[in-house]
Amino acid sequence: MDGYGIPGYPLRMEKLSPGSDRAAYYGMRVRADGNVPMHWHNFFEFDFIDDGHCRQVLNGAGTECGKGALTVLCSSDFHAYRIDPEKGEFMSTYSFHFDGHFPDSETLRLLGSLSGKQIDCSGDGTFSAVKDEFVMLFSETGNNRPERDAMVRNIIARITLLAFRACGSGTAKMPPVYPEIGYIEAHFREQITESQVADHIGFSAAWFSKLFSRRYGINFQEYLLNRRLKHAYGLITGTDAPITGICFESGFNSHSYFCRRFRKRYGVSPKELRQSTRPDNS
Amino acid sequence: MDGYGIPGYPLRMEKLSPGSDRAAYYGMRVRADGNVPMHWHNFFEFDFIDDGHCRQVLNGAGTECGKGALTVLCSSDFHAYRIDPEKGEFMSTYSFHFDGHFPDSETLRLLGSLSGKQIDCSGDGTFSAVKDEFVMLFSETGNNRPERDAMVRNIIARITLLAFRACGSGTAKMPPVYPEIGYIEAHFREQITESQVADHIGFSAAWFSKLFSRRYGINFQEYLLNRRLKHAYGLITGTDAPITGICFESGFNSHSYFCRRFRKRYGVSPKELRQSTRPDNS
Repeated sequence: MDGYGIPGYPLRMEKLSPGSDRAAYYGMRVRADGNVPMHWHNFFEFDFIDDGHCRQVLNGAGTECGKGALTVLCSSDFHAYRIDPEKGEFMSTYSFHFDGHFPDSETLRLLGSLSGKQIDCSGDGTFSAVKDEFVMLFSETGNNRPERDAMVRNIIARITLLAFRACGSGTAKMPPVYPEIGYIEAHFREQITESQVADHIGFSAAWFSKLFSRRYGINFQEYLLNRRLKHAYGLITGTDAPITGICFESGFNSHSYFCRRFRKRYGVSPKELRQSTRPDNS
Repeated sequence: MDGYGIPGYPLRMEKLSPGSDRAAYYGMRVRADGNVPMHWHNFFEFDFIDDGHCRQVLNGAGTECGKGALTVLCSSDFHAYRIDPEKGEFMSTYSFHFDGHFPDSETLRLLGSLSGKQIDCSGDGTFSAVKDEFVMLFSETGNNRPERDAMVRNIIARITLLAFRACGSGTAKMPPVYPEIGYIEAHFREQITESQVADHIGFSAAWFSKLFSRRYGINFQEYLLNRRLKHAYGLITGTDAPITGICFESGFNSHSYFCRRFRKRYGVSPKELRQSTRPDNS
């Protein structure tokens, strides 16, 4: 799908750096004194709260967040902030967007393991280390030096590593590099085929097909279907977008096929799921 | 040449991380109150002076150096420090060694453009930024977290970028990526062949041969000869090592062939050059 799957739905940020096709990233300082509606992006986002307090709804689940909360979002994550100015709530964030092709592969693999998480970076040492990196990142994007891209890539990698360590993954093994997952995550909402993915990572279609089944225990079509259903599930429970819109937004072409597969996987229809959760996130 | 080309010559550091084959790097805090003899390494080195003052002889050329001097050395660079304790001289350095296969390719390319240089990082902001990275680097090598290597790689890249900027290269174009040069720099003292290099970077020998001539204007054999002669020239003028040792150390097999090509290139024999310079660096 290249279009906008959910007509009229608040935010979907398509383009990096409007007005310029050079940069693959940009940063915004945001101070919000009221709700930030549910939205998602076609790229990665770091959202680092350096002041204030509010609640975040991240992929359908609500959580408190304050100073030092770093949220890592990839293109399949969606979130909203609930801020009640009458209670004196606000939040101040460094919001940094970057293209999924921009980070180095080692960083991308870590980002994959962190995306969709809100990571507590409020600890002594961690908060100032992460904030220093954001200050540097934002100052870096304002210059035109030839090594700017390399420096931005380095800072993104540093923030990713600090986050990996802060969220306790620092005691876990580094996640493996599976380049096909990066491609699927970026494109599952489009009409992608197995041979496209194989082609992208430089394998023959036949070899990739075998590799895929061995690696994930299911074939590519099933994997893609599950990924799309999972995305739809999140949007149904986490937003109030119309179900037809969600169906197309998640990469399905047919509403009836979507409903059938959804029920088969989750035991309820999309509509029943929506009624049973009724999230208050308009 | 796998052996030690110059018998009895003070220092040539062959191994990283003695006693361990895991790490591709290690750091030493060094405080020197007297001369550090001419030496070279089979790997990269950062040498960052955070206190003191002395003189460095770097690839045969002498220069003053003090707090904030960062020297970047690759495996073909050699250096010595002259420190006179009677004048109250000393130097305190962070000396960090790392394998040439360890950094990412973007960093390696910058390191190639910086190696053999002493870079002034004493400026406001730069000194503390670089020193902070070394403190972090040294603390990082002491832990056993799974993301340690990634963090060390990130810090090496950051130091390289800060150095690139500090030495004024920040206004120049980023140097191009030519992987064959990295291989030649690491191996020119050995009996390497054109097809080995082609093989290493994944080209057929015939294609690489054409590419090489087009890229450098001379063929591989001439390039390799020039590289070896340049190394020998530096050792003749910058050290008092015996010329026969220098000949083999630089990758030549025959002393008479070496002398003939040397005279052809520089207009003097190695012995005449040594006599004309008589460096005081014993």
